[in-house]
Amino acid sequence: MTQLWNRRDWLQTAGLLSVLPATSLLTNRSAWGQISDKLQTLTTDIPNAEPHVDQLIQKWITPIEQFYIRSHAPAPKIDPKSFKLTVEGLVEKPLSISYADLFDQFPKVEMTSTLTCAGNRRTELMAMKPIKGVPWGPGAIGNAEWGGVRLSDVLKKAGVKPKAKHIWFEGLDDIQRDDGNIPFGASIPIGKAFADSDAYPGALLCNQMNGEDLTPDHGYPLRTVVPGFIGARSVKWLGRITVSDRPSSNHYVSGAYKLIYDNTDKEWSQARPIYEYLLNSVIAQPKPGSKFAPGNYKVKGYALPPGREGVVIREVQISTDNGVSWMPVHLTSEPREYCWQLWESPVITLEPHQTITVRAFDNAGGTQPQHIEWNHKGYLMNDWHQVTQGG
Amino acid sequence: MTQLWNRRDWLQTAGLLSVLPATSLLTNRSAWGQISDKLQTLTTDIPNAEPHVDQLIQKWITPIEQFYIRSHAPAPKIDPKSFKLTVEGLVEKPLSISYADLFDQFPKVEMTSTLTCAGNRRTELMAMKPIKGVPWGPGAIGNAEWGGVRLSDVLKKAGVKPKAKHIWFEGLDDIQRDDGNIPFGASIPIGKAFADSDAYPGALLCNQMNGEDLTPDHGYPLRTVVPGFIGARSVKWLGRITVSDRPSSNHYVSGAYKLIYDNTDKEWSQARPIYEYLLNSVIAQPKPGSKFAPGNYKVKGYALPPGREGVVIREVQISTDNGVSWMPVHLTSEPREYCWQLWESPVITLEPHQTITVRAFDNAGGTQPQHIEWNHKGYLMNDWHQVTQGG
Repeated sequence: MTQLWNRRDWLQTAGLLSVLPATSLLTNRSAWGQISDKLQTLTTDIPNAEPHVDQLIQKWITPIEQFYIRSHAPAPKIDPKSFKLTVEGLVEKPLSISYADLFDQFPKVEMTSTLTCAGNRRTELMAMKPIKGVPWGPGAIGNAEWGGVRLSDVLKKAGVKPKAKHIWFEGLDDIQRDDGNIPFGASIPIGKAFADSDAYPGALLCNQMNGEDLTPDHGYPLRTVVPGFIGARSVKWLGRITVSDRPSSNHYVSGAYKLIYDNTDKEWSQARPIYEYLLNSVIAQPKPGSKFAPGNYKVKGYALPPGREGVVIREVQISTDNGVSWMPVHLTSEPREYCWQLWESPVITLEPHQTITVRAFDNAGGTQPQHIEWNHKGYLMNDWHQVTQGG
Repeated sequence: MTQLWNRRDWLQTAGLLSVLPATSLLTNRSAWGQISDKLQTLTTDIPNAEPHVDQLIQKWITPIEQFYIRSHAPAPKIDPKSFKLTVEGLVEKPLSISYADLFDQFPKVEMTSTLTCAGNRRTELMAMKPIKGVPWGPGAIGNAEWGGVRLSDVLKKAGVKPKAKHIWFEGLDDIQRDDGNIPFGASIPIGKAFADSDAYPGALLCNQMNGEDLTPDHGYPLRTVVPGFIGARSVKWLGRITVSDRPSSNHYVSGAYKLIYDNTDKEWSQARPIYEYLLNSVIAQPKPGSKFAPGNYKVKGYALPPGREGVVIREVQISTDNGVSWMPVHLTSEPREYCWQLWESPVITLEPHQTITVRAFDNAGGTQPQHIEWNHKGYLMNDWHQVTQGG
């Protein structure tokens, strides 16, 4: 429990927030972090929820109330008036920046990017073999306009020392685990932190989503958004940035969000943290798992290019004969790096029990796999997505 | 022809080399750029050659005489005593650095990395539909120890201006094209140029290969080596670095080394230049296309992780029943980012006309595709590789 008390100590010394006992946060959640009725709640103790995917793909920019929520603890109550962001570690000048100063001192930037949970589509892997974890369908994804300041600008002000290799993020949430409470944490390689292009910051310290202040469940008042990386690297309720020579030692970097196949200690210690999400595509309409009738349908869905600079969707194809033949579908949004792309087919006739399959291709030669190997935590499911008449 | 004369003008003003007429270079090639008898020559006018792949995979570090050669012109004769590297464009202070100064002023670094031609395995795509280009088998790949100085150190000395987004490389070779002679050129995004890690520079200005001076056909006296990127971005006979706000306008960036499927003007202008190579694996023994007998074989080959930081091969599998069932093979080298990995199977018995198939998986969730779509220039062939008894 030493770790917990140290942390609470630090929180109080920094004057960042009044830490409520987790239980009172829980009972207050319905008032504080209201879950939209457009989302399906997947866990009862902490907010984890995803939209109905057929509704989700109606708009390229996802409305906040339809945006999936992935939390490991209830949303903490943070007062931006007393909030300070700490920047420490391998820097020339550690910083403690108030919310007001953060957005006064650094240029404001905006970007549109897709956030997706590493566990998106996990239920399909669970159907192969059980997995512990939130049973995400294909709706743990959304595309938003994010506003904030560049992480790199803040790091430049602190002055990064030559040995720095990774940037750690730590949330102000309080996650109950058997071995003691911890904050959510993540880290990104330093090259990504400084990979600013004209269109995208390497990473954003974000206070706005779709032109509004962040909602409690999306990280109010401050979060990171790292375009191209799995959602777990975009830490909500951000309180501390640590510049280090190694990846974060937080459980959610060292002991989760890794691709694990054999579940040995050696594999856990050696596996690379997941950073980039992968090329993917999903049929959203007719809705997966629903009992839609045979008949005529415009098939619709989303495709996601892999999370790398300059890589976009080149083509999306569907098959109604289990992959024997394929037809390209119409892309209804412009290709953009770090953003999903919506698509729709001409009207096709679905016979009883007929299956539709989708696959996507990117402009860097990437091809979506027909099958992926089951992994222990159920991450990065991206094989050909299928929907069958009759569910 | 204006462009040609400007270029020759520049070369002579800079005192970089005495430009011999291309014809005299051609007739002198056998003396100057001797092609090893361990390589199979694929073109007669300029040196393009690859090793026998079954011999190639005997060593993790490829001996220079077994290293594939991809040139667009004969090797120019450059005297390091009079050679100067030019650094210009969006920099505070343009540089003209002698060979001696380059290796005196900047720290020497070494790295082991694999270089592979974007056209490696092109013959397999050619079998689907004809393609103009060098008919590479699966041997246009090699793994070497490279020595030189970091591109980033040189760029820091010149002082990169804020608008800089791409680093151009230009060779001192003289490529004969119908619309006039040009040097070979490439560019890389600036983020890659500065993506130095403890183990790898983002890009190397390289004068040594396997501990020896570069040979003429590998770029003597100076070349770039960009770990993770297709060989075409590692420009040989490097003479000029230009810092720019856009990708190079050189033909080999704007008009080649792109994934083109429909061959329309729009597609050519919009397609992203290829940078990273893809996850791949190849059976090298029994030798592809050879008339090996039925019987007992240890199957051997190489696998290549995709060219991204921290990504390594996780597993390689072979199938002797056309992909119905798979067995993992033994990886005989350590997994390393930017490097190929050698592998071998237990002894298996091959029946007449039996086919062996290989596929690889990486530690970032990447899966080698069963089939890729044919592309107009025959690049990035990486589908499941097969070898059949009887050829």
